[in-house]
Amino acid sequence: MFKKSFTLAIVLFLITTPAYAQTPTVESLELSINLVWVMLGAFLVFFMHAGFAMVESGFTRSKNTLNILMKNFLTICIAAILFFAAGYGIMFGSSAGTIIGTNGFFLTDVEDIGFFVFQAMFVATCATIMSGAVAERIKLGSYILIVIAMTTFIYPVVGHWIWQGDGWLTALGFSDFAGSTVVHLTGASGALMVISILGPRIGKYNGKKVNVIPGHNLPLGALGVFILWLGWFGFNGGSTLAADPSLVPYVIGTTLLSTSAALVSSSFYTKLRFKKMDASLSMNGVLGGLVGITAGAAEISLGGSILVGLVSGILLVEAIRFIDTKLRLDDPVGAIAVHGICGIWGTLAIGFFSIDTGLFYGNGFSQLGIQAIGVSAVIIWVSATIGGFTYVLNKISPIRVSAAEEKAGLDFSEHGSSAYHFKDSYLEGTSSPKAPIGLAERLNQKTPVENPTKS
Amino acid sequence: MFKKSFTLAIVLFLITTPAYAQTPTVESLELSINLVWVMLGAFLVFFMHAGFAMVESGFTRSKNTLNILMKNFLTICIAAILFFAAGYGIMFGSSAGTIIGTNGFFLTDVEDIGFFVFQAMFVATCATIMSGAVAERIKLGSYILIVIAMTTFIYPVVGHWIWQGDGWLTALGFSDFAGSTVVHLTGASGALMVISILGPRIGKYNGKKVNVIPGHNLPLGALGVFILWLGWFGFNGGSTLAADPSLVPYVIGTTLLSTSAALVSSSFYTKLRFKKMDASLSMNGVLGGLVGITAGAAEISLGGSILVGLVSGILLVEAIRFIDTKLRLDDPVGAIAVHGICGIWGTLAIGFFSIDTGLFYGNGFSQLGIQAIGVSAVIIWVSATIGGFTYVLNKISPIRVSAAEEKAGLDFSEHGSSAYHFKDSYLEGTSSPKAPIGLAERLNQKTPVENPTKS
Amino acid sequence: MFKKSFTLAIVLFLITTPAYAQTPTVESLELSINLVWVMLGAFLVFFMHAGFAMVESGFTRSKNTLNILMKNFLTICIAAILFFAAGYGIMFGSSAGTIIGTNGFFLTDVEDIGFFVFQAMFVATCATIMSGAVAERIKLGSYILIVIAMTTFIYPVVGHWIWQGDGWLTALGFSDFAGSTVVHLTGASGALMVISILGPRIGKYNGKKVNVIPGHNLPLGALGVFILWLGWFGFNGGSTLAADPSLVPYVIGTTLLSTSAALVSSSFYTKLRFKKMDASLSMNGVLGGLVGITAGAAEISLGGSILVGLVSGILLVEAIRFIDTKLRLDDPVGAIAVHGICGIWGTLAIGFFSIDTGLFYGNGFSQLGIQAIGVSAVIIWVSATIGGFTYVLNKISPIRVSAAEEKAGLDFSEHGSSAYHFKDSYLEGTSSPKAPIGLAERLNQKTPVENPTKS
Repeated sequence: MFKKSFTLAIVLFLITTPAYAQTPTVESLELSINLVWVMLGAFLVFFMHAGFAMVESGFTRSKNTLNILMKNFLTICIAAILFFAAGYGIMFGSSAGTIIGTNGFFLTDVEDIGFFVFQAMFVATCATIMSGAVAERIKLGSYILIVIAMTTFIYPVVGHWIWQGDGWLTALGFSDFAGSTVVHLTGASGALMVISILGPRIGKYNGKKVNVIPGHNLPLGALGVFILWLGWFGFNGGSTLAADPSLVPYVIGTTLLSTSAALVSSSFYTKLRFKKMDASLSMNGVLGGLVGITAGAAEISLGGSILVGLVSGILLVEAIRFIDTKLRLDDPVGAIAVHGICGIWGTLAIGFFSIDTGLFYGNGFSQLGIQAIGVSAVIIWVSATIGGFTYVLNKISPIRVSAAEEKAGLDFSEHGSSAYHFKDSYLEGTSSPKAPIGLAERLNQKTPVENPTKS
Repeated sequence: MFKKSFTLAIVLFLITTPAYAQTPTVESLELSINLVWVMLGAFLVFFMHAGFAMVESGFTRSKNTLNILMKNFLTICIAAILFFAAGYGIMFGSSAGTIIGTNGFFLTDVEDIGFFVFQAMFVATCATIMSGAVAERIKLGSYILIVIAMTTFIYPVVGHWIWQGDGWLTALGFSDFAGSTVVHLTGASGALMVISILGPRIGKYNGKKVNVIPGHNLPLGALGVFILWLGWFGFNGGSTLAADPSLVPYVIGTTLLSTSAALVSSSFYTKLRFKKMDASLSMNGVLGGLVGITAGAAEISLGGSILVGLVSGILLVEAIRFIDTKLRLDDPVGAIAVHGICGIWGTLAIGFFSIDTGLFYGNGFSQLGIQAIGVSAVIIWVSATIGGFTYVLNKISPIRVSAAEEKAGLDFSEHGSSAYHFKDSYLEGTSSPKAPIGLAERLNQKTPVENPTKS
Repeated sequence: MFKKSFTLAIVLFLITTPAYAQTPTVESLELSINLVWVMLGAFLVFFMHAGFAMVESGFTRSKNTLNILMKNFLTICIAAILFFAAGYGIMFGSSAGTIIGTNGFFLTDVEDIGFFVFQAMFVATCATIMSGAVAERIKLGSYILIVIAMTTFIYPVVGHWIWQGDGWLTALGFSDFAGSTVVHLTGASGALMVISILGPRIGKYNGKKVNVIPGHNLPLGALGVFILWLGWFGFNGGSTLAADPSLVPYVIGTTLLSTSAALVSSSFYTKLRFKKMDASLSMNGVLGGLVGITAGAAEISLGGSILVGLVSGILLVEAIRFIDTKLRLDDPVGAIAVHGICGIWGTLAIGFFSIDTGLFYGNGFSQLGIQAIGVSAVIIWVSATIGGFTYVLNKISPIRVSAAEEKAGLDFSEHGSSAYHFKDSYLEGTSSPKAPIGLAERLNQKTPVENPTKS
């Protein structure tokens, strides 16, 4: 059976053995340089998943930490395999009427495996955006099914429209350099639909009262933000797909300045708005600035990128408040504001600030209009598909865990364990080095627990 | 004295000043590109040590955290210096009868310092694999001596056999692209011998009862797993030693797919096996999939890499259980299952799945046989040397800390301190922002402790 | 108004749209390779800020963690924007009498944006060095003003003297490859002046008694140290500004060996000196070894780099003790010892160990003298400017928070929140999986708190 399934695999995948190095030419060297650049980008985008995992677990409660971490691992792994099997073909396969690709499944006849790897990291990013918004209350199984729908079909279709040569939005002149819309708005639109069906966490809204459910480990969240920023240099920089000295530094420069401006505006704006400088909102401001410049990193001026960032930072703060307190949609990590609202802003910003086509450079409203069309099309497509899919899922079997499970924490209900066993450290942490051995000794007796792996 | 020792050093090291850049040629550019690729790989493999440190400390108890962190720092630092002084020469020096290298000590007459740096990260990886298995009970001094033996001699000999042009296993046709056997099986075989002599942690086995001693900080462990995965792209990718567009993307692709498949199989298998999806075992599944594809990343098909990963994930779970409950060997982080069992599997997998030589491609059993010979030779060599060395060490002076020290925690006994001082944060963490200043004030009095650095 | 400010921006920044790729030549490929190398370096140096954030928060108390994280985010963001607007022009603009640059503001007419990005990471590093020393007691607003002064003017002037072609120290023959003096000593000198004005934390010195105020989360600190080491490969390696196979591996090799030697010497020295191997001091030893080799990484032999590191590790331990217990200056993370003392040592080490000009290579004392002049000049310049600036600031309004705010913690006083909400995890962490749902249920009621973002 093993061999049979392998033969099957081989028939499907049809991968030939790689050739090896030959004498270098200017052309072969250019391939090598671009390879190194795109691989570096892919590694950095991969690492963003560690960033998402730290942000999402740090900004939520400790009783759901293992579940969030598992969701993040499962997302990138399932996304990579399904994008290999189907998504890549739908996204980059030659077009059936500019709407959807229909070949290249299992990378059959695909030349550039490096490009696949880079793109696989992007689809996983889009999917994992949803995991933060649905945290602390969704069934793991339901989440996995939604990730499968997003990565095999829904995201690849968006990608085909915008990033495949003959996609209809490409043809229209829609511009989205690294994915403010393709990746971030797509993920956020999906998140919005799922949490609308899922509902808020218990204790989030008591009548008129809006409660803050504070994250349990903000240093972990802050580390996640730094990792995401690092990864984003690969996300935007790698999207040049070539180590072009005339383009890459420009993209990295706009990414750096927009993000820096967004942290400054979000932090000072919270100080102004709430008397104290809010750390969580400011850190989200960093992410807002990154999403905001992702679409226009290659065509907005360095000065413009600072303005894009300043707006992103303030927009992010107000968007989180509006979604949380006015729409009363419970998005534990502010994913919809960060990736959705700032994603829309970043996409439209091209219409204003693009040196080539922007309104403020005297190019009129046409680009702005095209950008608006693209944004609307993606929102409609993703909302309809993810919304419909999740609605059906929820009818078949509720996608939300029981109240008892939610209150006990998903770490316990889904994984039968917990993320921390801190009793020792808590006590040792405060006991002076002079603490009697006897104390630690007594504690130690308590540590071992029954083996949960015993069936 | 200072000058004297320096002169001595100079005489020994005999390093000449580096030359500087000249007008570029196609040949010089190829050198530069490959340099950048290998350096990127070296940096990523270096970062794996942060991953090991987070995994090993997160998956063990808080009272041994400082000790584990120090072990990880000491391992890479001692390994780097000793590999410079001796290990590199033994591993890559010209061969004395295909068994051992005998020149290039202190890099004398060594041209490629970049290659040394890359390889130094590998020897440190091999050594640090042992640190997780022996955690929470080994004397720091004894551990350091074992690391010295491994990095100066035992590992370099294995490396000479397999990665040096005229090593006897190379000559035999043994294939291990990035080190499933050279690095991982070597480290795991050493770990197995040391913990056999060391014995289980107090409280791990009570009569027939097998206790789980839960890790204290799984988010830290999860971050470590992500960092290890990131680093592994450099571990496998950099092992091409050249930015070859026909090889590198292939290696990265198999690494990505195998690992993704392993997380999927390990997580769903634990769900099936234990009713709940176990987070620690699943995360170890990621590492199992990485080790599993390390040997064959360059010659196993993308489809085959998924199968290698699927098997690795399930094998890992059963191996951990078998070692823990049947062999009753106490390996706190499952290092022997991850690096040993999956290392053997990955090495043998070439015999099945290699496009060039694999059984399933109609090439018969010969490669499989050669792979088995290599695996056996390495297990025998490492077990005999590390086993003998550790046995003697233990006779001279027990390598295990006293029961009282173990119960108090090695942070206290070896380092006179503890990894966390959380009392404030614990209380502040739960006190609302409206908490009276007075509370924090009273707490604050408790924080300062006598200066342990005062002799 | 929006459009107006944008037009203003455009007039100022005058950024033109980037050109796109053309057919490759050997010359264009060399540009691409060097670009990839310098970008990789820039990303790694960027990531050092995550390292600083983890080290500074982990080695201090939990009640000031959010404040430290915010300081780190604000530092890199403000530095990037101001270096773009002014600092770069002052540092690399053509010289007004070798003392200061006067053009290139807003990168006007600046060709190499990649070089700007790389350098922007350095100025941020210099500024953030101060944040650790002033932690737990400085007003956020005052800190920001000091960062502004450092990044717009004080650091760029030092950089102009040493790293701009016609700077007076360059002309003198002063050598500082990657910034032991330019970056680290500058930051440390600033830190020294600020903490002299700021004074020690409450509870640090009681009469003759020197208290240790232990860090609250050393694993986080250890992760930060690993991240800093990783980043430093980019800091030193990228400073070659070219992927030169004859130089880069050499620089990476000396950086690896010096750092490894420093960890070994600091850890064993603390064992010798204090009976126990001190983890915090040993980790600081890693940083000391990195700072120590930063100046000479390109011209000190591999053997010499080991000696530089060994000295750095011991020097670091004694410097921390001397500053802490003799000078009674309260530097919570040992920043002045790490970046200042080891920075001086590293700069002078060139005078001893440089293969080209060092005393120990028979080149006499002249280089050593020049190095001493440079070190003195920088200390005088930075101390005078930062000292004067901070003195005036403090006169206008005290730069230190009130005693009540300090005792309550800056997280509460500046940000109205706290970094951890661990009550759940602490209790869940110790409750067995069999814990009654009821328990978690009751706990859960306590979690939500009033929304602090409500004005």
